[in-house]
Amino acid sequence: MHAAPSIQKLLDELERLPGVGPKSAQRIAYWILNADKATALRLSEAISEVKESVRFCARCFNYAEDELCEICRSSNRDARSICVVGEPRDIPPIERTAVYSGLYHVLGGELSPMEGVGPDNLHIAELMKRLASEDIEEVVLATNPNVEGETTAAYLARLIKPLGIRVTRPASGLPVGGDLEFADEVTLGRALEARREL
Amino acid sequence: MHAAPSIQKLLDELERLPGVGPKSAQRIAYWILNADKATALRLSEAISEVKESVRFCARCFNYAEDELCEICRSSNRDARSICVVGEPRDIPPIERTAVYSGLYHVLGGELSPMEGVGPDNLHIAELMKRLASEDIEEVVLATNPNVEGETTAAYLARLIKPLGIRVTRPASGLPVGGDLEFADEVTLGRALEARREL
Repeated sequence: MHAAPSIQKLLDELERLPGVGPKSAQRIAYWILNADKATALRLSEAISEVKESVRFCARCFNYAEDELCEICRSSNRDARSICVVGEPRDIPPIERTAVYSGLYHVLGGELSPMEGVGPDNLHIAELMKRLASEDIEEVVLATNPNVEGETTAAYLARLIKPLGIRVTRPASGLPVGGDLEFADEVTLGRALEARREL
Repeated sequence: MHAAPSIQKLLDELERLPGVGPKSAQRIAYWILNADKATALRLSEAISEVKESVRFCARCFNYAEDELCEICRSSNRDARSICVVGEPRDIPPIERTAVYSGLYHVLGGELSPMEGVGPDNLHIAELMKRLASEDIEEVVLATNPNVEGETTAAYLARLIKPLGIRVTRPASGLPVGGDLEFADEVTLGRALEARREL
């Protein structure tokens, strides 16, 4: 390869991105080289700006530009409900459903004894403080439906239930639009156990 | 969606990139948010730097940081051969083969009457000047194996052959590692026509 050094550097940096292999990195690099300068600089500035201006919400630990995130600052949210998630990236998929309108609390990870992540490494103390000071009626434990997420949900349920707050968890079951034929047996088993009257 | 404005701006810019849809944009944006600041800024700077420092090679119109590109400046290239391509992005795949060691000439596109691209819109006059001043023995016409590329190659062959310079074109045929069963009939037809003695 005889790429100019600055092009090679761009390729190296692009290849670090998730889901971007050498071929997509090259495609993106040539797109940037070919784009007008303003367009390319808008991307460059969007990246540096996000690192300058984004911090964690002081209340829920979602990404925020001010002390509180857009959701905590909104007056349209149901402040009696907190949905607990592992990472800020878990919030957009829940928001897209338009089914949940309460607040969030980001743990900053999930319990994983294997990776040395214990309760003290997560924003659990801050969650308990919120439950003591805010007027919360329901906590939705939307941690991931895997071992770490289930462990975290079980741990939090044991902590929160004694406070007399309703604790729920999104249903496990068959993905809508999926094929029964391709469902794994754990998912299908849970879907059968949780079967509903029609 | 309740993303902070700077995150939304980053998502918008990422979605413009080729092969990056809303989901990959979100994955990349959260990767950037989660990355340490130095890593994210290296990407941001690589993008702006490439737009500052990259221009076109004065001889072959490949991307270059100096007056001449890395290939034109190299003393290890066979200066008696020019490989003509449509765009700078067509050079890396040819370089990766390690089969060609001559120079290049980038046309800046391919003839396309439909899109109003005629000979005057391409670096054809500059190619003819090189052929008159440099001591060239072979021109490899490596424009794309599609209608525009074939038209461009035929046009250039008619211009160059009278100069007594050897004009070649990479063979059309079956992709190595491909399945005969899935070959389209044009490719298979050409492969049969160009069959070799074993």
